[in-house]
Amino acid sequence: MTRTVVESKTKTAVLGFDEPFCVIGERINPTGRKKLAAELEAGDFSTVEKDALAQVAAGATVLDINAGVVYNSNPNPNETEPPLMRKIIEMVQGLVDVPLCVDSSVPGALEAGLEAAEGRPLLNSVTGEEERLELVLPLVKKYNVPVVAISNDDTGISEDPNVRFEVAKKIVERAADFGIPAHDIVVDPLVMPIGAMATAGQQVFALVRRLREELGVNTTCGASNVSFGLPNRHGINNAFLPMAMGAGMTSAIMNPVALPVGPKKLAEKKAEVEAKGIILPADMDDETFCQLFGLGSTKPRAGKEMEAIRAANLLTNNDPHGGEWIRFNKSPDEAGAAGGGRRGGGRRRRA
Amino acid sequence: MTRTVVESKTKTAVLGFDEPFCVIGERINPTGRKKLAAELEAGDFSTVEKDALAQVAAGATVLDINAGVVYNSNPNPNETEPPLMRKIIEMVQGLVDVPLCVDSSVPGALEAGLEAAEGRPLLNSVTGEEERLELVLPLVKKYNVPVVAISNDDTGISEDPNVRFEVAKKIVERAADFGIPAHDIVVDPLVMPIGAMATAGQQVFALVRRLREELGVNTTCGASNVSFGLPNRHGINNAFLPMAMGAGMTSAIMNPVALPVGPKKLAEKKAEVEAKGIILPADMDDETFCQLFGLGSTKPRAGKEMEAIRAANLLTNNDPHGGEWIRFNKSPDEAGAAGGGRRGGGRRRRA
Repeated sequence: MTRTVVESKTKTAVLGFDEPFCVIGERINPTGRKKLAAELEAGDFSTVEKDALAQVAAGATVLDINAGVVYNSNPNPNETEPPLMRKIIEMVQGLVDVPLCVDSSVPGALEAGLEAAEGRPLLNSVTGEEERLELVLPLVKKYNVPVVAISNDDTGISEDPNVRFEVAKKIVERAADFGIPAHDIVVDPLVMPIGAMATAGQQVFALVRRLREELGVNTTCGASNVSFGLPNRHGINNAFLPMAMGAGMTSAIMNPVALPVGPKKLAEKKAEVEAKGIILPADMDDETFCQLFGLGSTKPRAGKEMEAIRAANLLTNNDPHGGEWIRFNKSPDEAGAAGGGRRGGGRRRRA
Repeated sequence: MTRTVVESKTKTAVLGFDEPFCVIGERINPTGRKKLAAELEAGDFSTVEKDALAQVAAGATVLDINAGVVYNSNPNPNETEPPLMRKIIEMVQGLVDVPLCVDSSVPGALEAGLEAAEGRPLLNSVTGEEERLELVLPLVKKYNVPVVAISNDDTGISEDPNVRFEVAKKIVERAADFGIPAHDIVVDPLVMPIGAMATAGQQVFALVRRLREELGVNTTCGASNVSFGLPNRHGINNAFLPMAMGAGMTSAIMNPVALPVGPKKLAEKKAEVEAKGIILPADMDDETFCQLFGLGSTKPRAGKEMEAIRAANLLTNNDPHGGEWIRFNKSPDEAGAAGGGRRGGGRRRRA
């Protein structure tokens, strides 16, 4: 049985066909987050702290750490990213106890992350590109860690799933040459946006099945890519994740947190409410307002995707007796802690 | 390619591996609905009318009709059910144009339904029980209709999925002896409650795959059974349906409608709101109240399961260009009507 073991100093996360889905929190990543990038350049780690705590509370079992910020003061990531990677990892490790995923395209940052991370982090990532193979696989071997393998190579990302399978196979074979076992390769078969490629879902489900059956590897993906450009992205993601899990996908790099209701949305809703002639008490706090008006919360919470994943864990027999499901539905925002099992349910046939 | 064709006088619903999921609305059924049973005995069809309209509006493409009421005045269903079946079918056909599914365990009611239904209704159901095979298959042949085949036999419902597969196979073979093709058999592999049987999901997904690959038949199920006895049943059903569709399930007998907010829930919410010091205008109508306070609606609407099914149609490439998905998310409560397609989305890789 394929088991990919990822460890912090005190906690273990296992990816496997008979394990609950591994949720790798993607939030600690300044790519495309200008505000976070500016904070990091100024030495302000408050957002990173919040993101670490919120993701673990929402149910992430591994946290991805990406320090890919381009400083205004120094545009060379080879100089800035390694020390920042080290700094963020040390900070996050002081705050939460889940295993980490060291995520970079900068060689020095990968090595800095591997040195700083306690336990056995996941490395993110190698591709089928020659240069990356030669650079990353020795690190994987040297530090004895598992690695995410993305199915593109020097020719780019193929739209043909058979080509992507062959790239994954090549990476597994090259890793074997380095003495790295297949169970330490976590293949990302690449999820295309369904709005641009109608077969994107079917491709991934078929690829995951083949990767599992023919290569015996665990798999991961950037789950939210599938819904890019379409309305109600959560609605698509919430169906995609259970379907991918049914096909055998064992992890995803994703945001487990429903973003808190911000000041703008609060103000809009209050204006709408008052326009209808409703009078609010002057001392009503924002959180009470949100809850009464079905707005969500001013605090981060577990996102709907986490409900879909927990239901699919139950349906793939990776939540014995439904203990996690029952606990999650009592207290969805304290999903990070461990919980006991209790048997529920009965039996019924439709009439 | 396996295509099961179900028709009304003017509309066709096709079950198939390359077709959008077929939603068979289950609401018109007095079993376990005492109030509806009493209404029907009193000749009041108003609930049936409402259920027919609401289910079609929510996206049902076939309506199941079950007249299995036990009258206080006459406890013999062989006498009461056939005329009631005929009456309900005539009434529903006058109201909506979708194909029907004639659902009974009373032979006379099946034949009455087959006579009353225009077009090519689905018959529900035959089992592997000898008596049922001998009774129902001749009707299927005589009226040239497709039939739901439930995988239990004279020994009951087996917990062993291999036994349930063999029962389905026997029904398909016996049907062939009558000259009924496999594409007119829609197998219900029987969904057990996951709370009582941890492998229930895996069993169904594996069975659906085998039924499709080895027998070439379409499949259906009573989808909500899977969550019986557990908290947040919708959360489980919303994951189960996409997973079943990913495995190849082509229809379900289910409730597509989210029940409207009733007077009790309205009163509770109003009390909660007023206890917090909020003053409501005296003339606020219930529907406005529901919408402002995130309660849902006083009118029936498409249930969350319909969102999951539509997302899974998109992800199984049965919603080309996402046209239906885009339309549904603009106006989820008018999902019954046909709509055009428009291309959405772009392409992105996760960073």
